[in-house]
Order: sequence, then C-alpha cells, then structure tokens
Amino acid sequence: MNTIDAFVATQRERILAELKELLAIPSISTDAQHGPECRRAATWLEQHLRGLGCSVELVGSATHPVVIGEGPTVANRPTVLVYGHYDVQPPEPLEAWASPPFEPTEREGNLYARGATDDKGQVLALLKAYEAVSRHGEPPVNVRFLLEGQEESGGQILAAVLDDRPGLLRSDVVLIADGPYYAPGWPAIEVGVRGICYAEIVVRTLEGDLHSGLYGGVAPNALEALAQVLAALKTAGGRIRIPGLYDLVRRPSATERASWRRLPFSATRFRRDEVRARALTGDARYSVHERLWALPTLDVHGITGGFVGEGMKTVIPAEARAKVSLRLVPDQRAETVFRQLGRAVRAAAPGYARVEVRSLANADPVLVNTRHPAFRHLDRAFREVEGRGLVFTRSGGSLPILPTLGRAGAPVLLAGIGLPDDGLHAPNEKFSIAQLTKGIRIFARFFDAYGKDPSRSEEVA
Amino acid sequence: MNTIDAFVATQRERILAELKELLAIPSISTDAQHGPECRRAATWLEQHLRGLGCSVELVGSATHPVVIGEGPTVANRPTVLVYGHYDVQPPEPLEAWASPPFEPTEREGNLYARGATDDKGQVLALLKAYEAVSRHGEPPVNVRFLLEGQEESGGQILAAVLDDRPGLLRSDVVLIADGPYYAPGWPAIEVGVRGICYAEIVVRTLEGDLHSGLYGGVAPNALEALAQVLAALKTAGGRIRIPGLYDLVRRPSATERASWRRLPFSATRFRRDEVRARALTGDARYSVHERLWALPTLDVHGITGGFVGEGMKTVIPAEARAKVSLRLVPDQRAETVFRQLGRAVRAAAPGYARVEVRSLANADPVLVNTRHPAFRHLDRAFREVEGRGLVFTRSGGSLPILPTLGRAGAPVLLAGIGLPDDGLHAPNEKFSIAQLTKGIRIFARFFDAYGKDPSRSEEVA
Repeated sequence: MNTIDAFVATQRERILAELKELLAIPSISTDAQHGPECRRAATWLEQHLRGLGCSVELVGSATHPVVIGEGPTVANRPTVLVYGHYDVQPPEPLEAWASPPFEPTEREGNLYARGATDDKGQVLALLKAYEAVSRHGEPPVNVRFLLEGQEESGGQILAAVLDDRPGLLRSDVVLIADGPYYAPGWPAIEVGVRGICYAEIVVRTLEGDLHSGLYGGVAPNALEALAQVLAALKTAGGRIRIPGLYDLVRRPSATERASWRRLPFSATRFRRDEVRARALTGDARYSVHERLWALPTLDVHGITGGFVGEGMKTVIPAEARAKVSLRLVPDQRAETVFRQLGRAVRAAAPGYARVEVRSLANADPVLVNTRHPAFRHLDRAFREVEGRGLVFTRSGGSLPILPTLGRAGAPVLLAGIGLPDDGLHAPNEKFSIAQLTKGIRIFARFFDAYGKDPSRSEEVA
Repeated sequence: MNTIDAFVATQRERILAELKELLAIPSISTDAQHGPECRRAATWLEQHLRGLGCSVELVGSATHPVVIGEGPTVANRPTVLVYGHYDVQPPEPLEAWASPPFEPTEREGNLYARGATDDKGQVLALLKAYEAVSRHGEPPVNVRFLLEGQEESGGQILAAVLDDRPGLLRSDVVLIADGPYYAPGWPAIEVGVRGICYAEIVVRTLEGDLHSGLYGGVAPNALEALAQVLAALKTAGGRIRIPGLYDLVRRPSATERASWRRLPFSATRFRRDEVRARALTGDARYSVHERLWALPTLDVHGITGGFVGEGMKTVIPAEARAKVSLRLVPDQRAETVFRQLGRAVRAAAPGYARVEVRSLANADPVLVNTRHPAFRHLDRAFREVEGRGLVFTRSGGSLPILPTLGRAGAPVLLAGIGLPDDGLHAPNEKFSIAQLTKGIRIFARFFDAYGKDPSRSEEVA
C-alpha cells in the first residue's frame, strides 16, 4: 500500500466526520435568508484550508464569499487551480427525504444529504487529496483553491472577483470535480461542456386579474398565452423551433461519436431505470448521446401566474411567467441564442399579449484540449485506481463559470467522482463513500504525478 | 300618487336612516375577527323583520347566522322566497375611501359605504317594499326572507341549512336583488346563469425531477407537456377544441339576441375601459354578448410545477398541474362536459405523459322560464317605474347558491337595482338613493300584482 492509499485507509472515519460537518450546514444560495449559513460554510472551509497549510482569503461578499486558499509556493512546480462550490440547491420537497437533508446519514455505503455529491463531497475529496500529498513535506504542486458560494444561483460574485483579480486564474491547469462518472466503474471527463442561456418569459394580457364568471370568453388569459408560446417552441418530434438556433451547432467528430457508441449504454435501460419515463424525447434522428451532449436543448423549469392555492378561484390571470433555459453546444454563442429565443417567443405570442424575455444567465459552451499533459496524468490516475481510463463525454451540467475559469488559457479538466444515481438537485441526494475514498486516491495521484512531471506527453490510450 | 309611491315619498328619510344603521355595522365575513359584527347585523335584521310582522329565526351559526323571516301566511296567495346577504367584503385599501367605509355618507344623491350596493341597500329595498304592501293589512304575498351572512366567503352555512331543511325552499318564486342594472335606465334580469365545470389537470412525465444539465434533450418535461395540452384546447380563433362540447349548446333565441343588440354597448369601450386589454378573445363569429353569455368558455386559472422561487434552478419537472374551468350554458350538462374535457386532455397529451383530470366542482347551467307569471309581473313593475322593461342578460358572476335556491323548482329571478358604477368589492362603494327608492316602488308593485294574480300569463313585450 503506497502512502496515499494508507492515508485514506487510516483517516477514513475522520474524513467522513469532516464531510458530515460541512454537509450539516444548510448553505442554500438560492434563498437570501440562508446567507448566514452560506457564510458559515465558507468559514468552515477557511479554517479547514488553514489546517492544510494554505493561506486563505474570503472575498467578494459578506454572505457568499469566494474562499481562496493558496498552498505554499514551490519553485518549478506547476500550479493547479481547483474549483468547487460550497453552496447547495434548496432541499424541497422535504417530505420526499428519507432522512433530513441537513442531517447527513449513512445508509448502505452512501452518505445522504443535500450537497453530498453537488458539490461538497467532491470538494472534500480534492482537499483530502491535497492533504494526502502535502502533509509530510513540500507539496508536489502549487495549488489554488477557488471555492464559491453562489454556483447554484448565478455565480456573479465569483465572476466579479475574477474580473477584478485576473491573476487568480493564472495556472497550468484547472481541475474540477463536480459531476458523475459515466457509469459505475466508468470515469468520465467532459471534453465539451454545454453553455446555457437561462431566461424568464413574462406575458401580460390585462391590467389586472378579472373574474372568469364575468369576463370569461372575451378577456385574454395570460397563462393561456404563455402555454401557446411554450408549446410553439418545440415540434412534436422534439426539435426546438427557434429560427437560427442550429446554424452554429458543430457536429461531433466521427471519432467522438464512435467512442460514444462503445460506451456501456442501453437506451431502454437508461429510459427505464435512470430517466424513469415512458419515452425519451428529442429528435430521434440523433443518438441519445448526441441529443444529450451535442445538440442544444430547451427546458421549461417553472411557471407562475394565476391562482395556485387550495380549492378553486375563478380568476383570469393578467400576468404569467415561465423560467426556461437552453443548453448550448459548440459553436453556439449564448448572447446570440438569447436574441433568437426572444424573437421566437415574440413571434409565437398571440397578438393580445405583451411579452418580455429577460436574461437570467448566459454562458458559452467550451471544448477541452485532450492532448494536454495534465489531461494525460489525470487519465492515468483514474486508470490506476479505477482500472479504467477516462471516457470522453460532453455533459451539460454546465458550470456557467467554466468559460471564465478557462479564460487565462489553462485547460479545464472537469472529471467528477459522483455516480449517475446520486440524485443531485433532487430529494435524497447522496454520495458514495467508496467514490469519496477512490476520488481522494485518484486526485492525490494526479497531484503527485503531474507535479513531478508537468510536461509528460505520453499518448492517452 | 298610489299608496306605494306615497309610502316611499313620505318615509324616505326614515328609510335612509335605517339603511345607514345597517351599513354602519362592519359585518365583514371574510375575516373571522368580525364574527361579532356579523352577528350584530343579523340581530339588526331580526328586530327589523319582527317590526314588519315576520316571525324570525337565526340559524346555522352563532356568528354568521342565516336570518329566516316568515311573513304571516295568507291563504291562496303565492309564496315569494327573497334571498339576500348582510355580510360585506373587506374595505381595504382604507386610504382609497373618500369617507370611512362604515360611516355611511351621502354625496350627490349617493350613499357611500361598504355594502351599500352589495347587498345591504338592495336587501333593504326588498324589506321596505314588503313593508309598503303589508303595513295596512293582509300582505298580498306570503314572503320568506332568507338573509345569509357568509355570501362573500363561501356560503357553506346557508347551504348546510338548506340541506337540513329543504322545506325552506318551497315557494312559487325566488326573488333576488344583488347586482346592477345593465346601464342606468336599463334594468336587467339574468335569464341564464352559466354553470361551471372546474377541474384540475395533473401531468406526470417522470418519477422525480431531473437536472436539465444532465438529462435535458431526452427527459420528458411535465410543464412542457402541460403547455402542449393547454395550447391544444383552443384554436387560435378562440374556439374551444373539446370534441362534443358545443353539441348541446342552445343558441339564444333571435328575440334574445336582438335584445342584446339594442343594449347601450360599445365593444371598443368595453375592451379599453372595462377589460383593459389589447384585444378581446373568443370566436369572432359571435357577438361579445353571445361570447360572454351564451357560449361555453374555458379559462386556465393557475399552473404549478417545477421551480418558482427567486433566481434559477435547472430542473426538469416530473409533475405539473393546471386548474381550469369551463363556464357552461344551456343545455350543457356539467358531468358530460367533465368527461369531454378528460377525453380531450388525454388526446392532446404527448405519449410520454400520464395525465389525470380531477373534478373540483360541477354545476349545471340554469335558464329561467321567461314565461312564468312572476317573471311577467316583475317585468311590468320595472316598466311602470323605470319606463323600460327588463333586459335579458345571462351573466356568469354566478351566485354559487343560485342552483341550490332553484332546487325545489321555483324560478329564480335575479334582478338587481344597483348601477354598474357602484364599485362593489372596491373602495368608495355606493348605492344611488334614487335606485333605492325606485327599487322599493318596483318590488312593492311586484308583490302586490303577483299576489293578486299569481297565474297571469300576459305576454312580455
């Protein structure tokens, strides 16, 4: 057993206790009321990073600060920028949880809690990997942790900090663990990360709500107009009906598509056991992987308007809103897609409706350079621990900050250690404890090997 | 001057003082805190009815009792059931009132107070009409007053009392004054009261919410499916696309339609000043009145599903719900329409969606028999006092208690004496004193003439 594996084997219980402490903090960033809890998670990380020998700053916000942790500088060693986030999604619906979302609970080799896999558990694996390789002397790499507290609600704070201090991005590689394996035993790296165009559609038809008993039949109904708009945005065959949307979509190479066909994948099992739906949607002329990874997608996330309480109210709503987003692929541009969406919405709206489309977030898609040495070291680390190297995928879990992180030119390696059934954003989110310990062993190997041989250029198999 | 008109002329000041007493009681039924005030209004009516020679009971509730007043029984005279309510809407926003809502104030021939037109002023007109025809001897009709204290907040108390004592509904005609003229000088009667089919549509596409970054493009979205269903339920021209829905719709008679065309009505002003919309909806082949009163309508009242909080969440919702209702016209049957709606929803739903349609309320439409002698006497009474007979309208503001009041078979005559600008439910509610005195003269004439000749069958002009 090497020293890395020995560290993980002997420190397992302490590491789990640390993760439970972090998970017990309800650092929900989508709700301003939880600001103090977000701050508490940041402070926890600050203290933890100091314990690892890092100098730490909390910047950008009193309630949702970016935690910047810098390890000791070692000459002639590459710098790894590690990104992660300590904020989490809201836990609702609470009644669907088998154990309370902020009381981390072990069951059958998993740790259940909001944020377990997204992203606190994966952040902790990176911290512990760094601990494993740095606790007995000089660390093999220069590390800079950038841990943000607002990933689930826009990331504007980190974006502003990075605009202010571009030097924070100076590094040889950016490493992120915020996502799942392709399948158990199949670690994956996102060589393409979809962008996003998140918008709110607001429809108004009246100056104020009216009574349907008095005005039904002639007064225009905002929810009805909104339903018409949303229904018009896709064909029955699942193609998005936004003129110009597909113009800049670059088809993945034949090699990449061939690699996807080799993946252990059954569309039937995927539909039945993972998506758990009667049928999959989308343009059936393309493979499921191509629809998931290489084509733009459109989803409606929420609708508000009218009466949503118990019982009955016969109101004709004057206003209705929908939150929608498009996932974008190379070479689409988020700003362009936002304008295309606006035009399509206005064209689909009935004449009696006033519509407005507001941008909530825009992020361009990214493609990674798979020939970079860091990429190869990471692949080898996975190969050693997992027995299988990295599968090339293009997810779209879309970290909107991704293009920003790559702005200084370093390749961005997004290789999560979660599992596909972790239930991120859903009730009963969990993180496999085996994945946690493997993740620590993998990332520690990566730090070690990449630090010692930063220009290695052996071909990935 | 006949004795009725002499009564009104000589007693005007006393009648106004009585109405002011009743209006000064803040009998707001939507707020449980005002229970004692509602009780006080009921007690005021109890004493007043006793003064008119009625025997009185307060039943069904300690705080919001139904006041039942029975006049002396006279052999061979018809029984008129008079319905009204003594509870009022909350007065907020208080700062919008020119004089305090519970300090009745005369200005320019109007009496301003919460409840002035809805419904205390109109109830008092009926009480005073009965006083006018009964104070000097045997009343011309047997009268039963049913005055409830919970009309503005559901009416369950009266409904329970009537379930318990169906004999209270036994009468020859039901008379209600709780609404406005069509326009000043244009008294109106609701000859058709629309029914309703209120339902909830539930769409499920997944076992649980999914992350659009991971599953967007292939996972079926419940809100999207719901939008498709709702959009499919109407044509762009505003016709409801529910097979069979129009089969039982009885077109109003040519006479009725002609009477609507004579109404003082401008579709442009109605759209601009009353509906306040860019355009009116509905099938343009039919007049606005026909769309409002004689065709079924469909409205979406509320949609739930997905994420509706502040900010962004990239969820693919597994479930979505819409509350919808159809207003029904003769000879549609609510149960049939509910089944037709269910079939149309299922047909419109994409194959990947499971849909369920739940009934929340069904009420059949009611059409008044305009050949009933009571109808003709009432029309004549209006004609004598107002110089113009009753305009046939078919509202759908639908007093929900209406079908119950008609359950024993008596025709329900809903002919209010308010004016369209009375501002019911709004600040500065008022009642025209001229309408009050005319109303007393009209209803007194009706009691007198109908009592003396209950089988009259002269044709209405």
